[in-house]
Order: sequence, then C-alpha cells, then structure tokens
Amino acid sequence: MNILLVFAHPEPQSLNAALRDIAVAELEAQGHTVGVSDLYAQGWKAQIDRADFPSLATDSRLKVPAASGADFAAGTLTDDVKAEQEKLLWADMLILQFPLWWFSMPAILKGWVDRVYAHGFAYGVGVHDATRWGDRYGEGRLAGKRAMLVVTAGGWAEHYGPRGINGPIDDLLFPINHGILHYPGYTVLPPFVAYQVDRLDAAGFEGLAQALRTRMRTLEATTPIPYRRQNGGDYLIPTMQLRPGLGDRGAAGFGLHLDGESEAAATAA
Amino acid sequence: MNILLVFAHPEPQSLNAALRDIAVAELEAQGHTVGVSDLYAQGWKAQIDRADFPSLATDSRLKVPAASGADFAAGTLTDDVKAEQEKLLWADMLILQFPLWWFSMPAILKGWVDRVYAHGFAYGVGVHDATRWGDRYGEGRLAGKRAMLVVTAGGWAEHYGPRGINGPIDDLLFPINHGILHYPGYTVLPPFVAYQVDRLDAAGFEGLAQALRTRMRTLEATTPIPYRRQNGGDYLIPTMQLRPGLGDRGAAGFGLHLDGESEAAATAA
Repeated sequence: MNILLVFAHPEPQSLNAALRDIAVAELEAQGHTVGVSDLYAQGWKAQIDRADFPSLATDSRLKVPAASGADFAAGTLTDDVKAEQEKLLWADMLILQFPLWWFSMPAILKGWVDRVYAHGFAYGVGVHDATRWGDRYGEGRLAGKRAMLVVTAGGWAEHYGPRGINGPIDDLLFPINHGILHYPGYTVLPPFVAYQVDRLDAAGFEGLAQALRTRMRTLEATTPIPYRRQNGGDYLIPTMQLRPGLGDRGAAGFGLHLDGESEAAATAA
Repeated sequence: MNILLVFAHPEPQSLNAALRDIAVAELEAQGHTVGVSDLYAQGWKAQIDRADFPSLATDSRLKVPAASGADFAAGTLTDDVKAEQEKLLWADMLILQFPLWWFSMPAILKGWVDRVYAHGFAYGVGVHDATRWGDRYGEGRLAGKRAMLVVTAGGWAEHYGPRGINGPIDDLLFPINHGILHYPGYTVLPPFVAYQVDRLDAAGFEGLAQALRTRMRTLEATTPIPYRRQNGGDYLIPTMQLRPGLGDRGAAGFGLHLDGESEAAATAA
C-alpha cells in the first residue's frame, strides 16, 4: 500500500531520524510505497495566518473556518498545503512521528494539522441534519485509511502508566488519536511509544528498532483502537451524548468512546 | 498583582481579541498591572530549531534538552525567548488565551511553550534523588504563581461534557493544565471556556463578556484545580506511581491526580 510518514524532528542525526529510516526501510522491504514529509527539511510554516488564504480580501476579517473553506473549495489554498492534502489522499496509511514535547506534538507538526486540515477537507464535511452531524469520527474524507503515531518520550514508561504521574499515555494521546485521526475518518492503530530515549544504549536501541520493525510488518493485521463511530447509533444527535446504557460498565472519561473491547474488559473484571 | 496574558489568535478583529480586551480592561480596573504577549503581532517563531541555540557548534548534533540547558545556563538563549521568560518571572499570574484548534492550542502557542520552557527554566529543575524527582508538578521556578486558560471552541458545551463525543473538556485540557502549567509550579485555576463561538449573537456575546469579567474579578478567590504535588508524598519515587490506597474511591484516568476534592466527591456519591 501507499504510506505517508510525516516526520517532525529538527535534527537529521537524531534517534527519531534513525527510527524513521528503520521504519521506511522495513515498509519498503514489505513492498509498500513510502512517502515522507520531513517538516523541518521542508521548511514547513507552522502558524496559520492570513497568508494561508489567498482569496481573502485584504480588508476582510479573518475567520479561519470560513476562509479555509472558501480557498479549499476554490482550489486556491497555498501550494504547500495542497501538496500535503494530495499526499493524504494518495496514502492508504498515515504515520505521524514525533518526540513528545510537553505531552503533545511539536509546534511544527501541530501547524501541519492546523493548516492541512482545511474546512471542507478534514472538517465541515458532509450533511448536518437530524440523523447525521457531518462526516466525522469514523467517517469523512480519509475514511477507509489507517493511521498511527510513532512517539518518543524522555520519561519512563511507568510515569505514563495507569497510575503514573504524567497521566496514562493513551489518554494523553487521545486528543490526537481521536480528535485528529479518528475525526476525519482514519482507522487508528495503537501508537508505538518509545520511553527513556535520552538514555538508550546500543542494546536498548536495537531492541527498540526490532519492536518498531515488528509494528511496521503488521500494520494490516494490527487491531485498531475501537473508537465509536459518531453516526453509527451510539450518540444522540445533535447533543452528541453517548446514548444512555452505553459505556456504563466501568469505562469513564475518554474510555467511554471505546466500543466493545473496553466494555468487554470491564465486564470480565 | 502583575498579570501576563499570552494571546494566540491571528485576527485583531476576532472574538478572541474582543475577549482579550475585555479581560485586560477588567483586570486593570481591579488595579492589576497587565502585560500582553500577542504572539501573532510579535511575529513569534513557532518551531524549535538550531537557530534557538546560538552556543551549539555548527557541526554538533542538536539534542534539544542539552542545547536548551546550555544556552539557558549561559544566558545566551535568543532575545525573544529571554524576554518571555522575564515576563513569566515578573508575572504573579499567567493567562493563556487561544481558540481550541484540533482539541489543543494553535501551533504558534505550542511553539511559545516549546521554546520559552527551556531546560533549567521550566524542566530539568532541582535535585533528583531518592526522595525528590526534580522540582516539578507543584514545585519549580514558577511555583507560588497562578495560571489559567481562556479558551474558545466552536462546538457545543454538551459535546465536551462527561459523555460528549469530543471527550470531557477538563480531560482534553489536562495535558496543558497539568503538563504545561502545574509542571513548572503554577497553581492552576479552572479554565474559562466559551462554546459555540461561531454563532454568537449580541446577547450571547454580552453574557460571555460578563462571565469573563466575573472570572477576572475573582482570580485570587477562585479555588484552584487540586492537582497533587509530586514531592508531597502522594507518589512513589522514582516510578512516580500514585501511592497505593490513594485515588481508589472512584477516580480514574487523569482524575487520579486530583487531591481531596475528587476523592471527597467520590465518597459522597
């Protein structure tokens, strides 16, 4: 399949760059076609501003969703944004790879999301009526494609565990996995997370590399995170509340938005 | 007191700009001294790269924490970063104001965090030994100061409720409130969140403005989010696990890291 890896680290000699090269080599060895968006190497512009909306009149107030939707519909977004959108449409699978900085993605990658995810492309898609609230959360322009995160963290795995001080890694990544990947339609695979990366020795690196290769060999076989679909009957429209009776068996917080598995696990517990 | 408001919206005519002006006017009317960092107006550079670390040799590999720590210790970080650090030290209270884009902050504000929060300034502070894991999560260079978020969202409040499809707003903001504000020592106040901001009429705006003025009048009286302190005995060191017996009365996920209130609430329920 076609795979796009979006990479956000400033140093070509970094551990992240080494892991990226390992992932790309393994994917190509499996017969996939891989494209890489290396945001630092491309000189990616991080912040959204008026320059992103060429059709906006100089004296008009910038309302981002409206301006974004107008230029997307007219095909007049900037070339760098259009190129990334084309890559997303081309790719059957998207990988976002980044170091976890302040419990989220680096600014340059957030800016890739802010700018590439135009209105009409990644949000504001589909009909809003009594039975549908647009095509999102499991539906949308990128539906049918898979996506996953490859993340490095300086902290210990325990610090990101169920009772770890930083908060559980799956909850910290929920705004990305659910809010950025599931939202425009992606089927989201569990993330690959490497911990204590500032203290890796050679053996540690080799173990990490092997684990990453294994994940890259099993993209199609990996069971996705079972996020609920918005328009699949689990949510009331338009309040978007999880329907009464669902998610009552132990799940709470973000866990409510997992279908099946979490409820089964809660039942078994 | 001295208050710094960091503002991240590209449009001077925006609702966000109007709310900022209302907040500043109310704070000044209360006798506070207010500084504003308007990131778009300042032309803030969002992405971290080699240019942020003037002391790094051209042929050296960039390791961000090490490079950041070296230039911070030597006082040789770039002038824009040093100016923001000075403002943080000057301010008794920090307000971050931004539109919620993709369930997090705009790239330009994330880049303010990534760059201003230098190693030795906001992380990597204090002693790591058997009883302390650095000065963080309630301790640190910014301890004794208060902070809060002012956030606008296009979606409905219900969509961000306990069972809403986007996930609970307090959980979505946890990586910021806990991971960015509590981490370097801030006492964190509950956020001010405005919903459905793309559809506000005049009455809706006035109600919002009044609610914001009220919050700005009560900064000192508002009860903070009761995040646990890392070195206060609640966590095992160095695994940073919440000590057995704590947080067992109903709290889960991010809620484990709330002291007192959540446990009392769970007990009462």
